[in-house]
Amino acid sequence: MSPKNIGVTEVALRDAHQSLFATRMAMEDMVDACDDIDKAGFWSIECWGGATFDACIRFLNEDPWKRLRTFRELMPNSRLQMLLRGQNLLGYRHYEDTVVDKFVEKSKENGMDVFRVFDALNDPRNLERAMQAVKKVDGHAQGTICYTVSPLHDVEGYIKQAGQLLDMGADSIALKDMAALLKPQPAYDIVRGIKETYGEDTQINVHCHSTTGVTLVTLMKAIEAGADVVDTAISSLSLGPGHNPTESLVEMLEGTNYTTDLDMDRLINIRDHFKKVRPKYKEFESKTLVDTNIFLSQIPGGMLSNMESQLNAQGAGDRIDEVMAEVPRVRKDAGYPPLVTPSSQIVGTQAVFNVLMGRYKVMTAEFADLMLGYYGECIGERDPELIKQAEKQTKKEAITCRPADLLAPEWEELRAQAEALEGFDGTDEDVLTNALFPGVAPGFFTTRHEGPKNVGTDPALVKKRENEPVLEPITYKVTVGGRTQTVRVEPAE
Amino acid sequence: MSPKNIGVTEVALRDAHQSLFATRMAMEDMVDACDDIDKAGFWSIECWGGATFDACIRFLNEDPWKRLRTFRELMPNSRLQMLLRGQNLLGYRHYEDTVVDKFVEKSKENGMDVFRVFDALNDPRNLERAMQAVKKVDGHAQGTICYTVSPLHDVEGYIKQAGQLLDMGADSIALKDMAALLKPQPAYDIVRGIKETYGEDTQINVHCHSTTGVTLVTLMKAIEAGADVVDTAISSLSLGPGHNPTESLVEMLEGTNYTTDLDMDRLINIRDHFKKVRPKYKEFESKTLVDTNIFLSQIPGGMLSNMESQLNAQGAGDRIDEVMAEVPRVRKDAGYPPLVTPSSQIVGTQAVFNVLMGRYKVMTAEFADLMLGYYGECIGERDPELIKQAEKQTKKEAITCRPADLLAPEWEELRAQAEALEGFDGTDEDVLTNALFPGVAPGFFTTRHEGPKNVGTDPALVKKRENEPVLEPITYKVTVGGRTQTVRVEPAE
Repeated sequence: MSPKNIGVTEVALRDAHQSLFATRMAMEDMVDACDDIDKAGFWSIECWGGATFDACIRFLNEDPWKRLRTFRELMPNSRLQMLLRGQNLLGYRHYEDTVVDKFVEKSKENGMDVFRVFDALNDPRNLERAMQAVKKVDGHAQGTICYTVSPLHDVEGYIKQAGQLLDMGADSIALKDMAALLKPQPAYDIVRGIKETYGEDTQINVHCHSTTGVTLVTLMKAIEAGADVVDTAISSLSLGPGHNPTESLVEMLEGTNYTTDLDMDRLINIRDHFKKVRPKYKEFESKTLVDTNIFLSQIPGGMLSNMESQLNAQGAGDRIDEVMAEVPRVRKDAGYPPLVTPSSQIVGTQAVFNVLMGRYKVMTAEFADLMLGYYGECIGERDPELIKQAEKQTKKEAITCRPADLLAPEWEELRAQAEALEGFDGTDEDVLTNALFPGVAPGFFTTRHEGPKNVGTDPALVKKRENEPVLEPITYKVTVGGRTQTVRVEPAE
Repeated sequence: MSPKNIGVTEVALRDAHQSLFATRMAMEDMVDACDDIDKAGFWSIECWGGATFDACIRFLNEDPWKRLRTFRELMPNSRLQMLLRGQNLLGYRHYEDTVVDKFVEKSKENGMDVFRVFDALNDPRNLERAMQAVKKVDGHAQGTICYTVSPLHDVEGYIKQAGQLLDMGADSIALKDMAALLKPQPAYDIVRGIKETYGEDTQINVHCHSTTGVTLVTLMKAIEAGADVVDTAISSLSLGPGHNPTESLVEMLEGTNYTTDLDMDRLINIRDHFKKVRPKYKEFESKTLVDTNIFLSQIPGGMLSNMESQLNAQGAGDRIDEVMAEVPRVRKDAGYPPLVTPSSQIVGTQAVFNVLMGRYKVMTAEFADLMLGYYGECIGERDPELIKQAEKQTKKEAITCRPADLLAPEWEELRAQAEALEGFDGTDEDVLTNALFPGVAPGFFTTRHEGPKNVGTDPALVKKRENEPVLEPITYKVTVGGRTQTVRVEPAE
C-alpha cells in the first residue's frame, strides 16, 4: 500500500509572524521566498487575513489588498488561504450581511482561494453568512472549530459542531487550536469521530500552535486518525508561540503510512530566507520557548499579561493569583466561551474588576454585551441573575437571535464615509478597509502614497547590538569646535 | 485498564546544560532545585558523567567527586544516573580494566546508582568490562545502543545489539539518540522488536535530543511500542540542541493508555528555578532552535562547525560543500562508525584533509588508529587498502582484539603520577581525576582550595546588556553653565 499523502498548509506568511512578532513582517521580507513557497508542493499558503490586514495599515503603511494581489502574482500555482472571523470579518464588530458578501467577493477577486471561517464563541450563526458568501464566489469554504477545554466541551460536541459546518456547505473542516491546548488523544478522537460520523472523505485540516511543546505529537495522532491537511511553519519561523516546523513534519513521517510531497530543496531555500529575516524583528518577539502553564490555568499567555498590566496599573500586581482563580468562575458565568480574542479580553477584564471591586459590583460594557447575547451564543447557559443585572445596567434587552440580524444594511453609508476621506481611491476595497478599521484607515489613506515601511531592524545592527559590551568605561575622540580631544567616559555609579 | 506508568529520567543537571551551554552550569545554580527534583517522582536523575567531570575541573574549579556526593546528599530518595563512555570512562583514551573497575567502584561509593554505559562505535567489547564492574558493585547497569543511520544500520541490527547487552547482564537497555536522528517509526520498530525478541519485561530507556524538532513524537511512538522510561529536561532547560520538555511529555500523555506519576507542582518549581538560571549562561548557548539539516547531511551540527573552522584556518572556507560530500565516503571507508565524539572529529578532520590535499594523501594519526582497529570494531568492513596504508604510515599493526587487551595494568603507575602532584589529596578519587584528565587535573589540584567558580553572568547584567543601545557616533548639544556647544562623540576605536 502506498503511503497516504498528507497536505501541508504553510503559515510563514501569516500566522507565523503574527504569533512570533506581532504581525510586523514587511512584504519586502517575504517576496523573495514566494517562488520557492509556490513550488514546494503545499496544499495551501496561508498569507492573509487574521491580524495582517490591521498590521498593514496600522504599522506598515501598506495596502493589504495590494499585498494580496502581489501574493497572487508571485504564487500563481498555489491555493492562497486566509483566516476570516465570520461576521466580524477582520474587524472588531459584527458587520451586516451585504458587507460580509462584499468583503468575501473582493477577497476572491483579488486572489484568495481558501477561506478559513471561524467565530470566537463557536456560534455557527456567526459563520453562516460568510460561508455562504464564499460558496457563492466559488471559493473553498473551510468551516472552523475553535478548540478549547471546559467542563462542557467534549469530543462529541466538537463532532456535532463539524456536522453543523458541513450542513452549511463547508468544503473542509478546520480544527483550530490557537492556544496549543489540543493534546494528542483528544485530537485523535475528534478527527476519528468526524470521519466516522460524516464519512472518510470529509476533509479535515488541523491547525495547532506550538506554545506548549506537545502539538507536533498532536499532529501525528491527528494524521493517524485521518486528518488530511496540517498547518506548519518553516523551521526558521517556527516554535515558541508559533507553529511546528514544516521540515520536522516531513521528516517525522518517514517510514510511516503517511508522506508529504514537499520538495525539501525548496524548503531549505525558504528556511534560509527567513533565517535571515527573523532577527530583524527580534524586538517584537516573545521570549516564550515553551509554556505548559496554560494546561493548568486555562489562561492563554497573552490574556495573562493583559490582566497583569491591568492589575499593575491599579497598584494591585500582587493579586494576580486571585484573578487567576476568578477567571474560571467568570467563564462559567458566561457559559464557557473559548478564551480567544475578543472573549479572552472580556472575561479577563471582568475577572480583574471582580477581584478589585467585588464580584460584579461593576460590569464592563463588553461583559454586559456578552451576557446579553450580543456576541452570540456560548456552549453553556449564562447566569440568569447576571443577565438581569446586565439588562438593568445597559438598558438593553438580552437577545437570542443572530446578532447580525439586528443590523440594518450599511454598505451605502460605509461608502459615503469612505468617500469623505482624503486619499480614498474610490474602490470597494478602500470602502472595506475603512469599514474594518475606521480609526486607522483615514490616516493610512493620507500616507499611503509614501509607500510601505519596514519596521524591522537592519540585521547588521542586530548583530552588532548582540555583541555590544555593557556600558564599560570607554575612551572617546570628542571633536568640539574643530579641536579633537580624547575623553574617558564611564557610568557615574 | 489503568494506564501504564512511564518513568522519566530528568536530565537538567547533566545533559541539558551540557547540550545547551557547554556544561558550564555551576553547582550553586543547581542545589536549590534538588529538593523538588528529588521529590517530583522521576525514575532517575541524570546528574553526573558525560562532560561534567571535565568541565568541573577545567572551567569551574570544582571537585567532580564532591559534586556527586552533594547530589547524593541533596537527593536521598532518587536514583542518580551517569553517562559512562565504556572503556574510555569519562576521558579520551582506553583505560586498562582495573582502572575501569576502580572508577565504577568509586562512583558507586560516592553515590551513583544507574550507569548508562556506551561506546561511540557500538563495539560491545568496549562496554563489557564497565558493565561487569557495575554489576559487581550492585549498580544498575544500563547497556546503550548509540542510534545512527547508514546503509548498514537497520532495525534488526539494533535488536541484535540489545541482545548482546542483555547477555552482558544489562539491567536495562538505553536507546541513545544523541543527534536527534531517531524518527518515530524506527523508534517504534526498534523498541517493539527488542520487546518481542527478549521479552516484554526488558526495560527500555529512550534518550533523544530535540535538535531536529521531531523527537517528542519519537518518544510517543517509543512509548506506544513499550518503552518504559524516557529522558526529558524541565522546560526552562529544554529544546534546541537539548531535550524535549518534561512538562510537555506529562501533558502529552493525558487521555492515552500511558501516564507519568510526576508531581506537577514540583515540576513548576524546578522550571521556575532554571528559568532564572538559564540567562546567566547565554554567552555559551547555541542559537540553534531547530535544525533538520542533519537528516540530509548525516553531519551533526558540532561536527559541521568544526570542519568549517578547520577550512577557514586554511583559507578554504568555500570548500565546505566538497567536504560535506566527502564525509559519507570517509565514513564508508571506516566501516560506518556512528558520528559522535570521538569518531565525528576523526572522520571530519580526515574529510577536510582529503579535500585540501587529495584523498588520503595525508592520514591523521587518529584516522590511522581508527582504521587499524585501535578504537574497536565498526558495523562495516574497513577498506583493506587504507588499512595497509595506515600500517605503513604508523609502523603499527592492525588489531582485531579488544583494544584494552593491549594495555598493561596501570593503577600503580597512575597513583604514583598523582602522588607527585601538588595539591593531591591522597584519595583514589584524585588518582582517577588525574588519570582521566592528566593535562588539567594538576592545575586543578593546586587551585582547588580557592573553591568553585561560577562562570555565568549576573542576570541583572544580562538584562542590561540586552537593553543597551549600540554605540553609534552621535552628535550632542551640550549645555554647560548656560553655554551650548555641539559635541560629536564616537567610539575612539
